[in-house]
Amino acid sequence: MNIRIYNARVLTMEQGRDIFFGEVHIRENRISYVGNAENAPECRWDREIDAEGNVVMPGFKNAHTHSAMTFLRSYADDLPLHNWLNEQIFPMEAKLTPDDIYHLSKLAIMEYLTSGVTANFDMYLTPDTIAQASIDCGFRTVMVGGLNNFSQSFEGLEEWLNKYNDPEELVTFQLGFHAEYTNSRENLEKLAALVHKYKAPISTHSSESAGEVAGCIERHGVTPTVLFNSLGMFDYGGSCYHCVYMTDEDLDIMAEKGICVVTNPASNLKLASGIADITKMLEKGVHVAIGTDGPASNNCLDMFREMFLVTGLAKVRENNAAAVSADNVLRMATVEGAYAMGLKDADVLAEGKFADLIMIDLNQPNMQPINNIEKNIVYSGSKQNIKLTMVNGRVLYENGEFFIGTPAQEIYAKANEIISRMKG
Amino acid sequence: MNIRIYNARVLTMEQGRDIFFGEVHIRENRISYVGNAENAPECRWDREIDAEGNVVMPGFKNAHTHSAMTFLRSYADDLPLHNWLNEQIFPMEAKLTPDDIYHLSKLAIMEYLTSGVTANFDMYLTPDTIAQASIDCGFRTVMVGGLNNFSQSFEGLEEWLNKYNDPEELVTFQLGFHAEYTNSRENLEKLAALVHKYKAPISTHSSESAGEVAGCIERHGVTPTVLFNSLGMFDYGGSCYHCVYMTDEDLDIMAEKGICVVTNPASNLKLASGIADITKMLEKGVHVAIGTDGPASNNCLDMFREMFLVTGLAKVRENNAAAVSADNVLRMATVEGAYAMGLKDADVLAEGKFADLIMIDLNQPNMQPINNIEKNIVYSGSKQNIKLTMVNGRVLYENGEFFIGTPAQEIYAKANEIISRMKG
Repeated sequence: MNIRIYNARVLTMEQGRDIFFGEVHIRENRISYVGNAENAPECRWDREIDAEGNVVMPGFKNAHTHSAMTFLRSYADDLPLHNWLNEQIFPMEAKLTPDDIYHLSKLAIMEYLTSGVTANFDMYLTPDTIAQASIDCGFRTVMVGGLNNFSQSFEGLEEWLNKYNDPEELVTFQLGFHAEYTNSRENLEKLAALVHKYKAPISTHSSESAGEVAGCIERHGVTPTVLFNSLGMFDYGGSCYHCVYMTDEDLDIMAEKGICVVTNPASNLKLASGIADITKMLEKGVHVAIGTDGPASNNCLDMFREMFLVTGLAKVRENNAAAVSADNVLRMATVEGAYAMGLKDADVLAEGKFADLIMIDLNQPNMQPINNIEKNIVYSGSKQNIKLTMVNGRVLYENGEFFIGTPAQEIYAKANEIISRMKG
Repeated sequence: MNIRIYNARVLTMEQGRDIFFGEVHIRENRISYVGNAENAPECRWDREIDAEGNVVMPGFKNAHTHSAMTFLRSYADDLPLHNWLNEQIFPMEAKLTPDDIYHLSKLAIMEYLTSGVTANFDMYLTPDTIAQASIDCGFRTVMVGGLNNFSQSFEGLEEWLNKYNDPEELVTFQLGFHAEYTNSRENLEKLAALVHKYKAPISTHSSESAGEVAGCIERHGVTPTVLFNSLGMFDYGGSCYHCVYMTDEDLDIMAEKGICVVTNPASNLKLASGIADITKMLEKGVHVAIGTDGPASNNCLDMFREMFLVTGLAKVRENNAAAVSADNVLRMATVEGAYAMGLKDADVLAEGKFADLIMIDLNQPNMQPINNIEKNIVYSGSKQNIKLTMVNGRVLYENGEFFIGTPAQEIYAKANEIISRMKG
């Protein structure tokens, strides 16, 4: 499909480029033009969308999640991380089938679309059915291994890495493991060897709770960040999720190695984990992206809530109302997310990039008056403002309707069926 | 109009009553029946609404706001409270006309409706045009005085108190003043005399920042709460907004006198004021309601964001993931808000109460599966889930459309015109 979006306030997210009034053209799955109306090339369009002055910008990247955990939304709440994980989450997950994960991932994808998310960085159990869910919906997913002492295998990681390695496809795979505290030292060393074998980035949960860091120091004599780096895990990039308890040395390593912090503020509140020091990360030049974490800990998949929290929590943590500007937060939610996920063609709106974009409705009371659009989006925006979500050149969500090949009610029914069966 | 809502999951918010499947009937502006379908009385209906299994519950009460500050949304951000107020807010407010406040209040009312808010507790400059905006929209507003050394007068307070004193009407007025730090001791004493003259509750900003409390101790030798109480201000009830810096003695006074804390978590983050100790307030039996504060400090008027923050911030503050349950938060946002505002007929869904209610759309991905509806609303809900907002028996918002007598675009245009004129 060739699609022309016109009458738009275009926010490309390219460094230093202000919002301008103009057009965005899409040919098949890529952007073919971004600019003013005067210079726009002619074409035979399959569809022309009048943006009516609304904002067109790159879609948000949900840079850390466990999509299929939708089945546990509002099921096990109000528990600290380790009890929550061991007493509630792991026993229920043991009952999941690959087919369950297919349907539950679709439910999450629907929610991503309502929140303007065009790609997710998804750590979960069965990559093959996760990939199928994304492909069937037309959604972009970077899967990441979640290896630990009791699930997934090194053979599996290698198989998936080789199978989902084409950046032209909707779904790719990256090396990853659950966390230091769920992996033996032998596992960690073998993971580092894989990193070197494939010259590939690797990602993991890290330094989410104070107890986790203390445990790592007891087991290995150093923090998780120092440990991973000393094993050579960070030699080809990657990202660490949460990073609530980081030393200066940890952050210096992250900056030097270009390892991205993916912050998960809502989940860190809800599990009482703490507030990450985003201000210091930015000062030290660490890349910071944003993720919702999974729906069992958050409990929703809403990038607007996360964006407000990133800046709001930084302000109260630093006792400085100027901490972490709205511009910076928008960059984390788009460009830095793409960096974390290795999606170099899905970061900004520019010719040749993937057509992964959203339209933000300014004709809602929370966006009026139009004093400052970036601040409106970060401080005042909500899922209600997502008028359209396009992934890989296809409109998957528009004006509250989903275009993902399966009726919404069918996906809701499946999710309820799965959790009923488990409780049963 | 007589309206029947059927096929609903009814959440009355009465203490101890679980959600049940049934009907809510509305005759004119009051609820005439809440119960199952079998016992529902017959009637000639003007409209029958099939809730399709969605939740019907009391509307949220936004128990502290400055509605007309919509014009400053995203205009002056990233500043601490006192600079923000003195350098940005007060100079712009000086340029406002009563007519501006009429239009800007309407913009806020639209936003309340999208967030399921059916009444606001509004402290702002010109009660007469605020009242007119609410009446013209069909919205319920409890106005509160904002007297200080440089605006509003004692004569004004008395005039408004006498003029807007009929609880049957959409708009009422309560005594109030801006804050301790913007009022002379003489003012405070005269306010206390008014409280006693009318045996009326009084409300104010209190203990929002550490500096404010320190300043009060310097000026008066005691905290704001102790000062107000010692002057007899709390003898007939009322509420205090923010309450971030409260001593045990302060909270004991609040509990003993039945004075409601109205917490404003998003504003307290954004202005770097701090995190209120909601857990301790509840332990001490203090009433706690929730407000958005004004759109210049928040920057949006979204009760879903506030509800998540109340519990999320309590959890991280206490390092206890079980702190402040979802049930408790829902109660604050409805029943306790009505308590703060003196709206005894707008607290729960029951026969004889005002028909101020909302319908929450469960047919959205963020509400599925249906493991626990209250938790879904508090932890995962968003404005997108507000399918219908009814105030005083009239549907003012439904499926994204407003029914408030003025086209949305006209109100947006007015707001942009006002801020342009001021900047100009």
